[in-house]
Amino acid sequence: MIDLNADLGEGFGPWRLGDDLALLSIVTSANVACGFHAGDPLIMRRTCAAAVERGVAIGAQVSYRDLAGFGRREMDVAPEELTAEVLYQIAALDGIARAEGGRVRYVKPHGALYNRLVRDPAQAEAVAAAVVAYDPSLPLLTLPGSALHDVGGVTVVDECFADRAYNPDGTLVSRRRPGAVIEDEQEVAARAVRMAVDGTVESIGGSVVRVAARSMCVHGDTPGAVGLARAVRTTIERAGVRLGPFA
Amino acid sequence: MIDLNADLGEGFGPWRLGDDLALLSIVTSANVACGFHAGDPLIMRRTCAAAVERGVAIGAQVSYRDLAGFGRREMDVAPEELTAEVLYQIAALDGIARAEGGRVRYVKPHGALYNRLVRDPAQAEAVAAAVVAYDPSLPLLTLPGSALHDVGGVTVVDECFADRAYNPDGTLVSRRRPGAVIEDEQEVAARAVRMAVDGTVESIGGSVVRVAARSMCVHGDTPGAVGLARAVRTTIERAGVRLGPFA
Amino acid sequence: MIDLNADLGEGFGPWRLGDDLALLSIVTSANVACGFHAGDPLIMRRTCAAAVERGVAIGAQVSYRDLAGFGRREMDVAPEELTAEVLYQIAALDGIARAEGGRVRYVKPHGALYNRLVRDPAQAEAVAAAVVAYDPSLPLLTLPGSALHDVGGVTVVDECFADRAYNPDGTLVSRRRPGAVIEDEQEVAARAVRMAVDGTVESIGGSVVRVAARSMCVHGDTPGAVGLARAVRTTIERAGVRLGPFA
Amino acid sequence: MIDLNADLGEGFGPWRLGDDLALLSIVTSANVACGFHAGDPLIMRRTCAAAVERGVAIGAQVSYRDLAGFGRREMDVAPEELTAEVLYQIAALDGIARAEGGRVRYVKPHGALYNRLVRDPAQAEAVAAAVVAYDPSLPLLTLPGSALHDVGGVTVVDECFADRAYNPDGTLVSRRRPGAVIEDEQEVAARAVRMAVDGTVESIGGSVVRVAARSMCVHGDTPGAVGLARAVRTTIERAGVRLGPFA
Repeated sequence: MIDLNADLGEGFGPWRLGDDLALLSIVTSANVACGFHAGDPLIMRRTCAAAVERGVAIGAQVSYRDLAGFGRREMDVAPEELTAEVLYQIAALDGIARAEGGRVRYVKPHGALYNRLVRDPAQAEAVAAAVVAYDPSLPLLTLPGSALHDVGGVTVVDECFADRAYNPDGTLVSRRRPGAVIEDEQEVAARAVRMAVDGTVESIGGSVVRVAARSMCVHGDTPGAVGLARAVRTTIERAGVRLGPFA
Repeated sequence: MIDLNADLGEGFGPWRLGDDLALLSIVTSANVACGFHAGDPLIMRRTCAAAVERGVAIGAQVSYRDLAGFGRREMDVAPEELTAEVLYQIAALDGIARAEGGRVRYVKPHGALYNRLVRDPAQAEAVAAAVVAYDPSLPLLTLPGSALHDVGGVTVVDECFADRAYNPDGTLVSRRRPGAVIEDEQEVAARAVRMAVDGTVESIGGSVVRVAARSMCVHGDTPGAVGLARAVRTTIERAGVRLGPFA
Repeated sequence: MIDLNADLGEGFGPWRLGDDLALLSIVTSANVACGFHAGDPLIMRRTCAAAVERGVAIGAQVSYRDLAGFGRREMDVAPEELTAEVLYQIAALDGIARAEGGRVRYVKPHGALYNRLVRDPAQAEAVAAAVVAYDPSLPLLTLPGSALHDVGGVTVVDECFADRAYNPDGTLVSRRRPGAVIEDEQEVAARAVRMAVDGTVESIGGSVVRVAARSMCVHGDTPGAVGLARAVRTTIERAGVRLGPFA
Repeated sequence: MIDLNADLGEGFGPWRLGDDLALLSIVTSANVACGFHAGDPLIMRRTCAAAVERGVAIGAQVSYRDLAGFGRREMDVAPEELTAEVLYQIAALDGIARAEGGRVRYVKPHGALYNRLVRDPAQAEAVAAAVVAYDPSLPLLTLPGSALHDVGGVTVVDECFADRAYNPDGTLVSRRRPGAVIEDEQEVAARAVRMAVDGTVESIGGSVVRVAARSMCVHGDTPGAVGLARAVRTTIERAGVRLGPFA
């Protein structure tokens, strides 16, 4: 059994990104943007309402405070500040989710913060401290081997990426590199099945990397994202893997 | 018995406004800024921690999204959007307050939103809807006679202003008018006692206005604010009125 | 001879609005967003480069500081502040336009500010003061009869809207009302020709309103915007009206 | 002859930082914040007006877009984006300065961007490209030995810091380290004279570092900043060094 998660509610003001309603009919967990890289309160509320209606688990997609950069630029935020910022985001989304009959069930750092936590113990501890302060039972989604695994007091859940290229060390190839995001539907679906069934993926160097994960991320902001996500879901189910929220 | 409330945590990033710690030793309720007109997550957290330590009740000082204007400019926000924005702010602060061992006990709209709610039923309903969605038991601070009184399903608590001039109709004189804010310590203290004991104040026109209120606001961002607040507290207590949080 | 103008560069960060390149092949003037309601510096630069390449005149589409509300919410900004904000926006865009071999040739207030200037002399004077401070020769686009016409020292140019419904007094029907934006291609084209040739339009009440204008606005953010703009241009040209920038 | 520069106009909305008017009577160059780490349009305008009135040269203090972090957090901004952001800031300030009878005479990167440019050739080139695009004759203030020196087509001017501790390699000790900012008036004044007369300073390791510079920075946001700046100016003048803008 595996979970399928995607980033949702990543619009702001008049702008939208991706087809949220279509994705919500495919995934089992929704990483809802909390206003720091995307997502305004009304979008957050509508996204939560739609997720609750479809039985999709809501996660807080927390980010650096960087709307112009969509949270994709690393920032040297002091730990105490980062803890407060993440706590703020989780709490805001949880309050909105509860108003819609749901609640935040997990936390997924976004973009540059996600990647930073893989290798920066100070920021990993800062984010974990926010989760512990809010609700220590909330699991944090991360990569196998990330620095979050070394932080005590918080539950960490591994995820894999159906449509992202992997480095031989199990980290994701940077989006600034060509080939970082795989867009071919069949290739993505085949990788997804291998990840779900064998817990492995072929890295850009050709080596086999272990990516055993309780959740699999599909993206909503690439061209053809919905088709890709649907192909992943269908192919995984045909391979006999059941889908369901991890949290 | 009356409550003394003040706006707190109204800094942002490197900036500060007023002497929060001094005010916290005087007031019984702290209207903590929630990030939309002032207040970043770290300031919010520190302000909550200091309030909890001193037994001061925490309120969510919700605002229009207007950092540059400090929430002092009226905005034609659509009701659905305003509800979501206020819900977001209350939830964010409550999560932070709980992490510090407290919780949000009331809601006080800030600045232009506060004044707008006095006379705009649509925005009043929108703000009340946010409170109801989050926690219907949270009281809302407002002026006697405000449009919030006509909204069902929410608890409304009246407040008076020791250092603000009143129009004959019981509304506050606009800050853009000279004399809107009274700075003379003795005058403010005398007005405060009259408000607390008699429930009346003299308007700018000279008429007597009823301002019977469960809470009295003192400001923290005027010159000599702390001295003023202390004078108000001391004088009120000497007049035999007990002080305590209303919420 | 008439000018065709459209709002361009109204994305922000990862978000886009409308098909800028397609519109740039149709219009003769580009109202480029300056960062306050939309438009980040890189989008501004790319939009200016594309406009210069196609010989499209660049205008500064200045706005209230309201990214979340896309500048569509009226704000009570103090005149001195509004002047400084508009001056900032014009200067920023002009510097970017010059780096691309162009320059700002006119100023068009956006959204709620545009509508406010029609009836608010104080804000009209504040915006005009910014233009005068930067370059008094820059014309300001507005509606016939707007308060901007009563401000001295600045050149005002009237425009009409091919796809917006008119009130009998010549103001635009609010976007919050149904029918405010006309989306039928043939109807918009027919209205455009009548505006360009006769200088009149039929109001929502059925009366004939004079809208004699040197420039005509087409929108880029409605569904089918590009098709609509192209239909307007083709139909106007067929009616024997020449197209060219007004500034 | 040496120039004395200080950061000015670093307030935002209701907030202020430092005593700008006092500093303007001491320094010969004003690094005016442009809105990305501090400084709103009205503050920028007032600061420019005050600088012009006192004959103080105006420089554009450009920054990462990080209001909450006051531009003190390094950000991985893509070069093309950074160029556009810096161009936007210079142009905005220059337009405002010209409206007050002055103009931007130099560019000084702020905070984390300043430090990053010392060692990051890509960001150094990106910032220089903005200056070249706007006005190649504008000099850029930086540290001796910074990566900006290796970028062609732009004029680079070295500066030294009277109140900052130096590493043995001539870089500034990070503000996160204790002792990074020297607050003792006599010590700062003595260091300033040695810098101005001998072009050297003693590093935290005790070694002598060359800091020959055409401009000296004094800070406005430390406690006692004005007294410190005045002491620096007086002591330098007594040592026979003349003061005047470098640009």
